[in-house]
Amino acid sequence: MSQFLSDNNAAVHPDVWAAMQAADSPDAPYDGDALSAALDERFSDLFGRDCAALWVATGTAANCLALATMVQPHGGVVCHEEAHIEVDEGGAPGFFLHGAKLMLASGTSAKLTHEDIARLIDPVRDDVHQVQPHAIAITQASEYGCTYSRDELSTLSRFAHDRSLGLHMDGARFANAAAGMSDNAQEAASQAAHRVDSLAFGFIKNGGLNAEAVVLFDPQQADLAKYRRKRAGHLQCKGRYLAAQILAMLEGDLWLANARHANAAATEIAGACGGRLMHPVQANELFVNLSGDEREALRKQGFDFYDWGDDAARFVTAWNTRADDASKLAQAIAAL
Amino acid sequence: MSQFLSDNNAAVHPDVWAAMQAADSPDAPYDGDALSAALDERFSDLFGRDCAALWVATGTAANCLALATMVQPHGGVVCHEEAHIEVDEGGAPGFFLHGAKLMLASGTSAKLTHEDIARLIDPVRDDVHQVQPHAIAITQASEYGCTYSRDELSTLSRFAHDRSLGLHMDGARFANAAAGMSDNAQEAASQAAHRVDSLAFGFIKNGGLNAEAVVLFDPQQADLAKYRRKRAGHLQCKGRYLAAQILAMLEGDLWLANARHANAAATEIAGACGGRLMHPVQANELFVNLSGDEREALRKQGFDFYDWGDDAARFVTAWNTRADDASKLAQAIAAL
Amino acid sequence: MSQFLSDNNAAVHPDVWAAMQAADSPDAPYDGDALSAALDERFSDLFGRDCAALWVATGTAANCLALATMVQPHGGVVCHEEAHIEVDEGGAPGFFLHGAKLMLASGTSAKLTHEDIARLIDPVRDDVHQVQPHAIAITQASEYGCTYSRDELSTLSRFAHDRSLGLHMDGARFANAAAGMSDNAQEAASQAAHRVDSLAFGFIKNGGLNAEAVVLFDPQQADLAKYRRKRAGHLQCKGRYLAAQILAMLEGDLWLANARHANAAATEIAGACGGRLMHPVQANELFVNLSGDEREALRKQGFDFYDWGDDAARFVTAWNTRADDASKLAQAIAAL
Amino acid sequence: MSQFLSDNNAAVHPDVWAAMQAADSPDAPYDGDALSAALDERFSDLFGRDCAALWVATGTAANCLALATMVQPHGGVVCHEEAHIEVDEGGAPGFFLHGAKLMLASGTSAKLTHEDIARLIDPVRDDVHQVQPHAIAITQASEYGCTYSRDELSTLSRFAHDRSLGLHMDGARFANAAAGMSDNAQEAASQAAHRVDSLAFGFIKNGGLNAEAVVLFDPQQADLAKYRRKRAGHLQCKGRYLAAQILAMLEGDLWLANARHANAAATEIAGACGGRLMHPVQANELFVNLSGDEREALRKQGFDFYDWGDDAARFVTAWNTRADDASKLAQAIAAL
Repeated sequence: MSQFLSDNNAAVHPDVWAAMQAADSPDAPYDGDALSAALDERFSDLFGRDCAALWVATGTAANCLALATMVQPHGGVVCHEEAHIEVDEGGAPGFFLHGAKLMLASGTSAKLTHEDIARLIDPVRDDVHQVQPHAIAITQASEYGCTYSRDELSTLSRFAHDRSLGLHMDGARFANAAAGMSDNAQEAASQAAHRVDSLAFGFIKNGGLNAEAVVLFDPQQADLAKYRRKRAGHLQCKGRYLAAQILAMLEGDLWLANARHANAAATEIAGACGGRLMHPVQANELFVNLSGDEREALRKQGFDFYDWGDDAARFVTAWNTRADDASKLAQAIAAL
Repeated sequence: MSQFLSDNNAAVHPDVWAAMQAADSPDAPYDGDALSAALDERFSDLFGRDCAALWVATGTAANCLALATMVQPHGGVVCHEEAHIEVDEGGAPGFFLHGAKLMLASGTSAKLTHEDIARLIDPVRDDVHQVQPHAIAITQASEYGCTYSRDELSTLSRFAHDRSLGLHMDGARFANAAAGMSDNAQEAASQAAHRVDSLAFGFIKNGGLNAEAVVLFDPQQADLAKYRRKRAGHLQCKGRYLAAQILAMLEGDLWLANARHANAAATEIAGACGGRLMHPVQANELFVNLSGDEREALRKQGFDFYDWGDDAARFVTAWNTRADDASKLAQAIAAL
Repeated sequence: MSQFLSDNNAAVHPDVWAAMQAADSPDAPYDGDALSAALDERFSDLFGRDCAALWVATGTAANCLALATMVQPHGGVVCHEEAHIEVDEGGAPGFFLHGAKLMLASGTSAKLTHEDIARLIDPVRDDVHQVQPHAIAITQASEYGCTYSRDELSTLSRFAHDRSLGLHMDGARFANAAAGMSDNAQEAASQAAHRVDSLAFGFIKNGGLNAEAVVLFDPQQADLAKYRRKRAGHLQCKGRYLAAQILAMLEGDLWLANARHANAAATEIAGACGGRLMHPVQANELFVNLSGDEREALRKQGFDFYDWGDDAARFVTAWNTRADDASKLAQAIAAL
Repeated sequence: MSQFLSDNNAAVHPDVWAAMQAADSPDAPYDGDALSAALDERFSDLFGRDCAALWVATGTAANCLALATMVQPHGGVVCHEEAHIEVDEGGAPGFFLHGAKLMLASGTSAKLTHEDIARLIDPVRDDVHQVQPHAIAITQASEYGCTYSRDELSTLSRFAHDRSLGLHMDGARFANAAAGMSDNAQEAASQAAHRVDSLAFGFIKNGGLNAEAVVLFDPQQADLAKYRRKRAGHLQCKGRYLAAQILAMLEGDLWLANARHANAAATEIAGACGGRLMHPVQANELFVNLSGDEREALRKQGFDFYDWGDDAARFVTAWNTRADDASKLAQAIAAL
């Protein structure tokens, strides 16, 4: 079977295994170890600006802990109506933010422009009867595999700061977004996270086991995030194994190489889809118009993927997608 | 350096590593994989009664998710005033239980008898002005390394059920408690968790990496715990690696063997402490009266441990404590 | 000035004043007094079925306490996207329900049919990644002054119970809704609340000062609501003055007479609006298409009301609207 | 029957009734009316320093909304182990503060010194595993009817600010505390609330119906408190009736006169108690050692009061305690 269901359960990269096992000697518990302590500097280098970085075991926790640094319980978070935090996190934002509200905006390809956001929040009366927005959350790459450019992020961040809103980025597939921007890791990272206030930097879909990074570009917020992480049961006592995963992914820009591999596979498949593509392919996800018969035909040839409504399919490539599988899928789609 | 600081950052057992790596082939994400699906039956066998079991990454999350099946936001949880959930979990119960209250009882060696609990809750007026208890949480082995016997648990559970209270057991060192009860794994497990409603079964201190089990002896509560786990950001997408850790610990009763090893080391050291012992040594922790000079002397000989107040020290043994280190510590203490 | 802005700040009815002052002799504090104790029976009589009734000071608290008897923190409440609980309660449901989610359905005139609700919740996957609905909240009369008939409520409640959902009714203007159904108080009340599980029965807009009733048609939920009321700071120590307000409103069916008065005024004005009406007028609110010039003309004649968007106005009548004012407004609109 | 049970269900003062009825003409809803708008200035005058003031219907809500301006969900509030917020508010602080923890200190007569507090919080490790204090809450007069002097408050506030802790005062019987400090209202008020950051100024026990004031001495916190008030369902739509109560109590220093009356009665009774007094009588509560027989004897003479444990009784005087009743009680106790 040739698997294009999701990248979220791909195998763990050998370098990540090696790094975890190298961390097997005793060190201080929780995040007191040398590896955890190295994260702030390592991410500050990567993004070219001061930041604090914390490991957590899931993207859901990463998003919510970052948002907790910006959003009061009585406030709201503007996000796309199809954002993962709204649709697929089991109400986690309501839990971590103590009842704060997700305020749902519409926008193309699960992306938001400042006009989309203004359309939603401008009518909110500035009085206590209505929940006021405290932050904006965007997804890079978006739930439809599309990316925000440096310029788009500039505009959004200016808008956010004009309105005194925090700007958080859900980067479950941040690497895939960045990989499309530059071959240089520093440049790619800094462009893809341009001027955001916080980033949930995903590694799990890209070769990690169970470590994501909460990156806070206002390092003064790190304390609050650390207290909240403990309080949410997310401070693991053997934290060095999570830090090791992240450092292994950053080492030699493995994160970018893995993402480039996945993106290349997606690009090859996209080339065969032509007018069938529902969204531009800018990362490692494809949403493709395919009839029921066509999907059945592909499945009979051994390709596994999710239906996307009645007339389409979603294909996701990963760091370990075999180039051959991608080529064959491209050919199979072209031959439909 | 001979380390007796804690068992919470001990290395990971080789069998656990092997099992994790054996899980590296693709399977369904989250807890849809075959390993996660095996947990219910595996734990039901061990305890000799029906239960549901969920993996989570920390003991804090395990305790809180179990308690959430018993405690309403307006209720309370009776626990010892030195219980881990009160003292060392950063307020996690207040978070997971939405503001429910920890109601603090006193008792010898961080254990609670039903009289201790009655003394606390009998004066609570049955009116809306006072928070009513909804559950009792005990720790097996207790924060001072002492265990509840089968008979003590019988009495406590009868008391709890008479009062319509849930009974939860924090088993961060459950294996160490059980190891003192029988050499037979089934017998040890069922005695140590006799009649409790839920158990946070700890594996991390005993050779695991980052997987504990929430064991619910009313399997109908599993659904609620699963929704809450997701909502708390604790549903990892590659859950098979956590299930693998737990299954490896259960395989061939590794959990019990590891605990026996740790307990044996503690017992040997205890033999040298005589009247210095502050609490009976029934698991793998020792609290020993030692003057500042005596502690300094031990440290100069290469033993690492925590001070416990001004006149005592805490020593913790682990699954990987070298027998030789334990013997040397015993001799050093005897020689003071 | 002839006031059609809102009924929410109308004067207090003289009978309500009298009843409050009659309660000025000492009685047991909180809800231990004779007046508070009379509520359950009084409402059970009115609705012709067993219920428990609690006073609270606001409709927001009434709605939220009722919902708290049906909705777990990880669940959701289906409501209309323009429902008061979504739009105008400052996020109170998120607070009282500990982060539960409002799930927004669309429907005509701020009412919901079971098809509207099914359209929203049928696509919700029954898995932990998505918030599951636990209850439905409807508003009687709706935010656009429209009512649910006995038959509509039958259908909705059958749907709700088939799906194991609670059915709550926000009755901020319940009296106005009921007044349109029958001249007999018992009949009007039981039809307007037909088969719902709970009702926030509003009195404040209809002549009360600061007392609404939470009516729970499953009296076994009363206990939970009472603990939550105290915990939310809503258990007043001189509760007899709130019970007195409610009993005064029920006495001699004052609640229905007051509502009939308001509705009659609205009906008279509606008669002059013809095709301008945006929604049927079934209670005491009118939404009327009026240009900016027309609105200005009306204001110059001394009528006060809110704009409703750019091309319409909202008029609300109250228990104390002078018949003469209503007639003049009707004439003025007819003359435009 | 001569009632010394509590002041919490005393009748409403005639001036308060008059003021409420005078507010019966329409004004803007919620807190947009002229009376509500007058509160900030009125309280700033009284205390001789800038403050913001909000009405709420209960002391529980007042305390919790004030604390919400100082305490994060992951923080703690130091209070006396017998403080009303700990013992008698049904867990409201856990609700309003989203799971923050009450940290219980011991102290004489339900008062706290900075040494009492330091003894509790100095051992708290400054790490994420332990809940950190964010605020201190004291009660003026204390739960045993004792008062904090200006000097004691100076010391406490210096301590609080040195530790970056907010200092909140539960003033359910603030008037009774202040009445003992000066005959001049401004002086009494400013001494009794000397240097605290917030005050729940109680009026209900002292002649009001259902209005207390949240007084915030950092007026910039008013916004947050107002959003939280709405979100907690405590923003009444006819708020003018609550503002009217408070203004009536402030008018002509009625609050102080009422409290002086109650205190005088308590002082007279205290004079007869001699060595029986368990705490100094500095406000309007007496805790008196009386055997079961003695209590029975008093009750036979028509005095109503609560037992306080097995060997004592609590007597509370109120603004409307008849001087004659107090004298008779004093004589009866003297005659035992």
